Amino acid sequence: MKLFSYNTMSESLKLESTAKCFGGSQNVYSHESTELKCNMKFAVFVPPQHAEDAVPVVYWLSGLTCTEQNFITKAGAQQHAALHGLLIVCPDTSPRDCKIEGEDADYDFGTGAGFYVDATAEPWKTNYRMYSYVTQELPVLIAANFNIIPGKTGIMGHSMGGHGALVCALKKTGQYQSVSAFAPICHPSVSPWGIKAFKGYLGPNEDTWQEYDACALVKKYSGPPLQILIDQGTEDNFYTQKQLLPEDLVRASQESRGVSVVLRMQQEYDHSYYFIATFIASHLEHHAKYLKA
Amino acid sequence: MKLFSYNTMSESLKLESTAKCFGGSQNVYSHESTELKCNMKFAVFVPPQHAEDAVPVVYWLSGLTCTEQNFITKAGAQQHAALHGLLIVCPDTSPRDCKIEGEDADYDFGTGAGFYVDATAEPWKTNYRMYSYVTQELPVLIAANFNIIPGKTGIMGHSMGGHGALVCALKKTGQYQSVSAFAPICHPSVSPWGIKAFKGYLGPNEDTWQEYDACALVKKYSGPPLQILIDQGTEDNFYTQKQLLPEDLVRASQESRGVSVVLRMQQEYDHSYYFIATFIASHLEHHAKYLKA
Repeated sequence: MKLFSYNTMSESLKLESTAKCFGGSQNVYSHESTELKCNMKFAVFVPPQHAEDAVPVVYWLSGLTCTEQNFITKAGAQQHAALHGLLIVCPDTSPRDCKIEGEDADYDFGTGAGFYVDATAEPWKTNYRMYSYVTQELPVLIAANFNIIPGKTGIMGHSMGGHGALVCALKKTGQYQSVSAFAPICHPSVSPWGIKAFKGYLGPNEDTWQEYDACALVKKYSGPPLQILIDQGTEDNFYTQKQLLPEDLVRASQESRGVSVVLRMQQEYDHSYYFIATFIASHLEHHAKYLKA
Repeated sequence: MKLFSYNTMSESLKLESTAKCFGGSQNVYSHESTELKCNMKFAVFVPPQHAEDAVPVVYWLSGLTCTEQNFITKAGAQQHAALHGLLIVCPDTSPRDCKIEGEDADYDFGTGAGFYVDATAEPWKTNYRMYSYVTQELPVLIAANFNIIPGKTGIMGHSMGGHGALVCALKKTGQYQSVSAFAPICHPSVSPWGIKAFKGYLGPNEDTWQEYDACALVKKYSGPPLQILIDQGTEDNFYTQKQLLPEDLVRASQESRGVSVVLRMQQEYDHSYYFIATFIASHLEHHAKYLKA
């Protein structure tokens, strides 16, 4: 039964591009975000099954410096999403063009580096609300414009976006039935990227940082059981530089009542999209297992 | 039996980057080209089988504005090359930084637009020798540095690179055992891109253009039987603008003694890498059928 079509799409969404891909379509939309107070783009892979039936949705959160384009261009995910009938939503990684002084100064803070938190510190707190954007504003938009199955939602990501996926799944208990990550930042309150971001967006009080630290969140998790799949390359520079610390999450999860973590160390792989492309099939299989159960 | 390793690699090749990918590696090299008289980059996907055995090689020729990066980043070919045990070589699309006046003026002539011909007109003829580079210099380099099976070579490409693949296979009779193309320029001597390129590189005498026109070459082909696989999207702007003219090649092949063309019109697909990614599996299967026979 076809419930939605592009003709009935909300007027607030503008179709920026569309391309037929593996029997479905790879689209990019723009809209005025109320959370972020700027114009934002996001990508949606619409699987072929969506023409006939409601489908589960999986969110992909990208890493530092990325836009909505990186994953859809480089990961080769569409073939597997088409196979399993999953809608894939890829938001941008930060607000854009907010005219905040210093927003473009660094690759690891500001533009392209929203870290999926709701900022509380000036001058960021007005726009840098990526946590609420990803977990509230975007899901409402997707539900209004696509034929998706309520209660069948997964989340995944890479590096900074892996951190985002973990945090969203651990904080919004019950909202995500499946979660996985590639080379995620697992313990941001003690790693250089995380410390810089949290100090800037949340201020110097380290207690507040725990609200967005997967290792802290996993210990106090009290939602439905969650199995987290993580792939980590052994030749990933950021792993060896201790930006990622996946072993800390495995250790923390042993104190958790509901969360288990499967950490697969992938020999010789690095931090690139070649690593993601190699293992994306098994991640989407992991999501399909929970979302199509 | 392992015959070659990176340790024994010719000193003339410089490894620019390497990433583990689908059990093999995606590498980029640079070298000083004698044909093109400039420094050139090319990409090689080394399949996992190469560690133990000699493997067939397939050349990929990219389209206008591309470098050695586009195919390796966007096509999702490595998984299929790893499955079939094919080495994939992706040259750049033109000489670079040759300091020729006007080389960077247009997207469809000069830099990024070598058209896989050996130029005969000034000021291009010294550097713009992509036909000899692809069919002679590069194969010698590949044979010297990788463990490949002699006489098992395929060639494929997209758009301008599809034209290049057709021309190389039809002119160098016997050198390529398999050939395929995505949305190739099939009749360049009568289409706008081709006319501009041929006039610039080969001069105004249209008789000389026939040397690099697939429709002309197919009629006088006298080599071993060749089955050409072509995919063409129906929503490809360049198809509807008559830049590509695949039907002309099908018609011309009916006058050929040795060449047959299978043209698959793919409904709703465009000219992008989403189209290529969707059908790359069946193209590499086509090459494997001939190269592993």
